[in-house]
Amino acid sequence: MSMAYVSGDLDRRADLRENKEALTVLRSAPDARVVVVARDQMVLAGQGALHSVGDAEGVGAHRLEAFLGLTPDGAPRFALWLDDEMVAMREDTSDGFLDRRVLVVPGRPDLSLVDLRSLTLKSAFDPPTLSAMATAKALFGWHASHGFCAKCGAASQAAAAGWRRECAACKTQHFPRTDPVVIMLVSEGDHCLLGRQARFPKGFYSALAGFLEPGETIEAAVKREVLEEAGIACHDVVYHACQPWPFPTTLMIGCFAKATDRTIKIDHDELEDARWFSRAEVRQMLAGSHTEGFGAPNPMAIARTLVETWANAR
Amino acid sequence: MSMAYVSGDLDRRADLRENKEALTVLRSAPDARVVVVARDQMVLAGQGALHSVGDAEGVGAHRLEAFLGLTPDGAPRFALWLDDEMVAMREDTSDGFLDRRVLVVPGRPDLSLVDLRSLTLKSAFDPPTLSAMATAKALFGWHASHGFCAKCGAASQAAAAGWRRECAACKTQHFPRTDPVVIMLVSEGDHCLLGRQARFPKGFYSALAGFLEPGETIEAAVKREVLEEAGIACHDVVYHACQPWPFPTTLMIGCFAKATDRTIKIDHDELEDARWFSRAEVRQMLAGSHTEGFGAPNPMAIARTLVETWANAR
Repeated sequence: MSMAYVSGDLDRRADLRENKEALTVLRSAPDARVVVVARDQMVLAGQGALHSVGDAEGVGAHRLEAFLGLTPDGAPRFALWLDDEMVAMREDTSDGFLDRRVLVVPGRPDLSLVDLRSLTLKSAFDPPTLSAMATAKALFGWHASHGFCAKCGAASQAAAAGWRRECAACKTQHFPRTDPVVIMLVSEGDHCLLGRQARFPKGFYSALAGFLEPGETIEAAVKREVLEEAGIACHDVVYHACQPWPFPTTLMIGCFAKATDRTIKIDHDELEDARWFSRAEVRQMLAGSHTEGFGAPNPMAIARTLVETWANAR
Repeated sequence: MSMAYVSGDLDRRADLRENKEALTVLRSAPDARVVVVARDQMVLAGQGALHSVGDAEGVGAHRLEAFLGLTPDGAPRFALWLDDEMVAMREDTSDGFLDRRVLVVPGRPDLSLVDLRSLTLKSAFDPPTLSAMATAKALFGWHASHGFCAKCGAASQAAAAGWRRECAACKTQHFPRTDPVVIMLVSEGDHCLLGRQARFPKGFYSALAGFLEPGETIEAAVKREVLEEAGIACHDVVYHACQPWPFPTTLMIGCFAKATDRTIKIDHDELEDARWFSRAEVRQMLAGSHTEGFGAPNPMAIARTLVETWANAR
């Protein structure tokens, strides 16, 4: 597995989003396929992620249909977001544990609901399919939290095949929100700075990260976050890569930076711990062989890409 | 003049935003200064951009006060957003033209209201001051369009010294919105691709640009936008620099890219024209000496930085 959600192969064809006739034709194409989402979970048919249009519509009432685009072969891809009422919480004792609850579609044991992160961790589908799911999740997640016009408070309506919301009361158009987050690997000589939040699995360390604020450049946000969270001043910020991260709607902007010194002062509201690791240690963490049991970020995350790139730089 | 709004020198001190006592102390510091905003205009006292706290509060009732941070010398900086009712539209015949309307604060001829773009074009203030104004404008612009909770429709309230809104009804917290926009200079050999929108001044050409969408990387958004707007496939996308652009709340992410061919197919919904310019021509455009009168982007914009960097690359 490598960094997830960056392999989108769909031609989004934004020009078709308001062309109802063209969308109707595309929907009836034999190779049209649909990502089905219920609340924030992916709906799978057996092991399959992509449903035919008929199968997808057969699951039940939906809140919204979005047009995702065309594959390189020209096959249409849609996403369908089921009505919340179509799914229910059930006790799942299949693994012998009590108190494990899962979402199901009542009366449809052939369907399972799985969260996107689990599917990605298991590499359950090829990267383009996971990317399409990520786009659908981000888009529907935005609709889920933006049912009302932020300008006037009236209920707003989805438009443009899921890519816009409109307010009939004040005529404001709303577009999907994508929040830039900076994530950075800070190094000083042959050591790099990694931190952990209390909610992380035991021993797991990752790159520092935080939301970019209005009026900031990416480079300024990197410096501010590192100073805020670890008390470390840094410079020579260099962009490396980015990753759409639909939990819920962020864009992770991955950078490298150089620290001016190694004296850490942790902001314990943000981090449980932060420390310097040598390149040799980081290589052990990546290999899962660190003698103290320290772990590196998961391969699906851009944090891993940053750490690996730095660890293998020489 | 060079790329504007990237020289923020304020330590934002997010840790103080909910510390009312600390903010009260900072507000009473003799070196505290305030950026005053009315609607989306900057309020100047004579030629001055930074008001004392007493002067700022003396202008009249305000909707919101935001804490911007501390200067490198530790001087507090705030921003004050006046009630809309404090300002009025007036006929301005000072330049001999009729039908020119300006915003004024009635009864305060010592104050003038000027839009940030004009102040920036004139380099009316030093870069850190213009950056602070840009932050204030982006922040207040977000409040102006987000008075209601997008989750439930209830009126929301400003919190955290202007950096958050909260919904008392459903308890959702809302953070300022920053929309990533990709802007890219596409080249092929010794030529680069520039386009113009119908609203641009005559002869003016700039880099192509567009909003990044959910599920996209920066690099994918660059490729999509260039293909959509000019029909050009491109590759080798390289991040160069970014710029906060508070019109209203975007982050311009500047990139270079290479085109695979030069056959332009313009999307006339987006662009009036797009064409290839040779490096020699672009140097003339930058110097204002192009024989056909073509012009380059304004120095305040990152588009200019991209064009200049490319033009001077060899």
